Amino acid sequence: MKHIPIAHILSGQHTEQSVTVCGLVRTCRQSKHITFIAINDGSCFESLQIISELPADQTADISTGTALRCHGHVVPSPGTGQQWELQAQSIEITGEAPESYPLQKKRHSLEFLRGLPHLRPRSNTFNAVFRLRSSLSHAIHRYFADLGFHWVQTPIITANDCEGAGEQFRVTTLPAGDTHMEQDFFGRPASLTVSGQLEGEAFATALGRIYTFGPTFRSENSNTSRHLAEFWMVEPEVAFADLDDIMALAEDFVQSMVRHVCDTFAAELAFFEQHMEKGLLQKLQQTTAGSFARITYTQAIEILLEAPRSFTFPVAWGVDLQSEHERYLCEEHFQKPVFVTDYPKQIKAFYMKLNDDGTTVRAMDLLLPGIGEIIGGSQREDDIHVLQQRMEEIGLDMESMDWYLELRRYGNQPHAGFGLGLERLLQYVTGVHNIRDVIPFPRAPKLI
Amino acid sequence: MKHIPIAHILSGQHTEQSVTVCGLVRTCRQSKHITFIAINDGSCFESLQIISELPADQTADISTGTALRCHGHVVPSPGTGQQWELQAQSIEITGEAPESYPLQKKRHSLEFLRGLPHLRPRSNTFNAVFRLRSSLSHAIHRYFADLGFHWVQTPIITANDCEGAGEQFRVTTLPAGDTHMEQDFFGRPASLTVSGQLEGEAFATALGRIYTFGPTFRSENSNTSRHLAEFWMVEPEVAFADLDDIMALAEDFVQSMVRHVCDTFAAELAFFEQHMEKGLLQKLQQTTAGSFARITYTQAIEILLEAPRSFTFPVAWGVDLQSEHERYLCEEHFQKPVFVTDYPKQIKAFYMKLNDDGTTVRAMDLLLPGIGEIIGGSQREDDIHVLQQRMEEIGLDMESMDWYLELRRYGNQPHAGFGLGLERLLQYVTGVHNIRDVIPFPRAPKLI
Repeated sequence: MKHIPIAHILSGQHTEQSVTVCGLVRTCRQSKHITFIAINDGSCFESLQIISELPADQTADISTGTALRCHGHVVPSPGTGQQWELQAQSIEITGEAPESYPLQKKRHSLEFLRGLPHLRPRSNTFNAVFRLRSSLSHAIHRYFADLGFHWVQTPIITANDCEGAGEQFRVTTLPAGDTHMEQDFFGRPASLTVSGQLEGEAFATALGRIYTFGPTFRSENSNTSRHLAEFWMVEPEVAFADLDDIMALAEDFVQSMVRHVCDTFAAELAFFEQHMEKGLLQKLQQTTAGSFARITYTQAIEILLEAPRSFTFPVAWGVDLQSEHERYLCEEHFQKPVFVTDYPKQIKAFYMKLNDDGTTVRAMDLLLPGIGEIIGGSQREDDIHVLQQRMEEIGLDMESMDWYLELRRYGNQPHAGFGLGLERLLQYVTGVHNIRDVIPFPRAPKLI
Repeated sequence: MKHIPIAHILSGQHTEQSVTVCGLVRTCRQSKHITFIAINDGSCFESLQIISELPADQTADISTGTALRCHGHVVPSPGTGQQWELQAQSIEITGEAPESYPLQKKRHSLEFLRGLPHLRPRSNTFNAVFRLRSSLSHAIHRYFADLGFHWVQTPIITANDCEGAGEQFRVTTLPAGDTHMEQDFFGRPASLTVSGQLEGEAFATALGRIYTFGPTFRSENSNTSRHLAEFWMVEPEVAFADLDDIMALAEDFVQSMVRHVCDTFAAELAFFEQHMEKGLLQKLQQTTAGSFARITYTQAIEILLEAPRSFTFPVAWGVDLQSEHERYLCEEHFQKPVFVTDYPKQIKAFYMKLNDDGTTVRAMDLLLPGIGEIIGGSQREDDIHVLQQRMEEIGLDMESMDWYLELRRYGNQPHAGFGLGLERLLQYVTGVHNIRDVIPFPRAPKLI
């Protein structure tokens, strides 16, 4: 890898030096004696301008999408739009882009590019989205590492059913039609995890502060712009923490990540502001400017009942908040991110700590403008009797879940945690409307 | 989270301050008026000594495994073995460890603890293993981020068969026995990925330098100390790189990671040296001391044929290297890590670049003493005709793999990459013999 990343050249590290650069041609313009080539190598959003005065036959086959290796001299650019450019001494074409190449120079719709997941990262938009996704993912790891959290890689294949719900993919080695479970790889039903939380709790009670960051799965038959069958979740879990602790962590975490994106991706955000969401920059600045609103579910219901508008889904204490309700709260009423806490136990998971009122649980959802729920979390039930009763109520298999009860039986500790969907955070910071456009190879019903 | 991590106290950040600490009791020793409690909170390997002169009834129920919250004063320790200790002002027991608690004070075998994956991180050994696993995983991300690599989260559920082999788990939403594939979630066969490489290649040809780091799966029926059904792989892929580039990267990567562990985990490595592998420290120092050996497969066969010992599996040009062969090469002949390159094409994957000899491919395996193969990589075939022929030879479904050919059809670039198994690297740096003991919740035949 003797070639130099274009990001280094554009940051002035190789001025007046001879270097080799490699990448894909974004545009190529031939004039009488000079060819202007813009080349991108994925090291940054910007392309490098190559000026070629080589014999015309050496550049005749260069077009948008051509891959090439170019040796040349880095000089200050007399033109506008870039500070440095490369005067080509030799150009080697490693791969042409024939006329059938689907990503020609013109602007393509995101829908069109979605059909080409292997090629779309070569486009401007997806180049920006996926570099931002990588950087944000790195920032997530750094954030937790700096706070002394241990990353726990919880299992993907599981025999648990975390939410007590049924929307799980089965994992098997039996051929379709074969029902001899005892001959299956694990000898018992296995599925893809919907959350690493339960295993994460086990590690939090040993290592104090942990988080998971990995793929999770829902076989929900939702063909929407907000749902994926495979997506990435971040799930911190903290021993000796309560709901307030975890809300403070969630707020600081989200604000830190937004700040990271604003500090690191100025060019990309300007592009997204122009092409994806007007007002994106202002929204992100507001997100980091002050603290988030905090209301209870009961207060949320009161606000919604008093709202000067009607909703498609009726509002009453006890109903689950719908997307329209969540968005009213954060987009219209508070006009900023909102934590809603203390939901009725009936609409929340069994492991959430029951309040003294006996009807609500120490749960919190974080709602973001334009997105709705991005985080769900709770203090966990640490009263083994209450927990056991809740598990029986929803019909969990108590024997296979006894290990989870043992976390309370032995060295019991209050603890709390939350889960954040990476893709929804990416939608929030990029303004990209469809969740399928922020993950490399989206999975959804009939989409693989 | 007003409590202070013990690591901060033991590094002298809170001397002569009043603090709250929380954690699990490792040992508790009662003398006449004083109780000595060693408490660990997962923030470091060491425990904090708590000195309690509180009324005896307040500490009577404390035993190994008890969870407690203690408020006290940090003072220099007069005893040996620690620089600071905590003089307790109050102790709150949040969870007792009754007599049935499986992790009593005595030393337990790894086999015994393997049966308690939810509790074993509370033991000394697994506390060390899993904190080291987290730190090493963070170091992997930092290593690649610092080199300008983008992390690409390639899909877990896939319709590809990367190796052209059959050892994949099926993923389905159909009930066992149902064969109506058209009603299945994806409407076609889906399985768990065995490697993110093919998708990684697509991103490398757009973003230049990428890597994947995530779970991968094999349904191999191997009940050994070296195999898991679910394990984590790191797979860098670099555009415009050849086999030499990728070997240099692999060597620097492995040495950097070993250096990170040596620099960061002195106490843990001393513990592993004593309890897991005599000579561990020396082995790790040697790993970073000089460059790795580099031989071709043909040279390896010659060395094995001339070896002053016999092998269970016969040696001849064309056979796949067995574990005994690999270990002879790095443990006895070279006594250091060894790259073996240019394997016969018959025993390597279809995507590896064919050499001019027409019989070997630009592949490399990195062999480590005590471990065997830890890395497999190659320069990728960038001649579309050769690639097509190789795919046809092994009977791949050409239609569903056409996207992979398009990477060569459009903007073709030489590129290369490798895959490293995280768990094998962890075995190497910890000396832990069984691979099931370096992953939080191991998955293997009949083990879930």
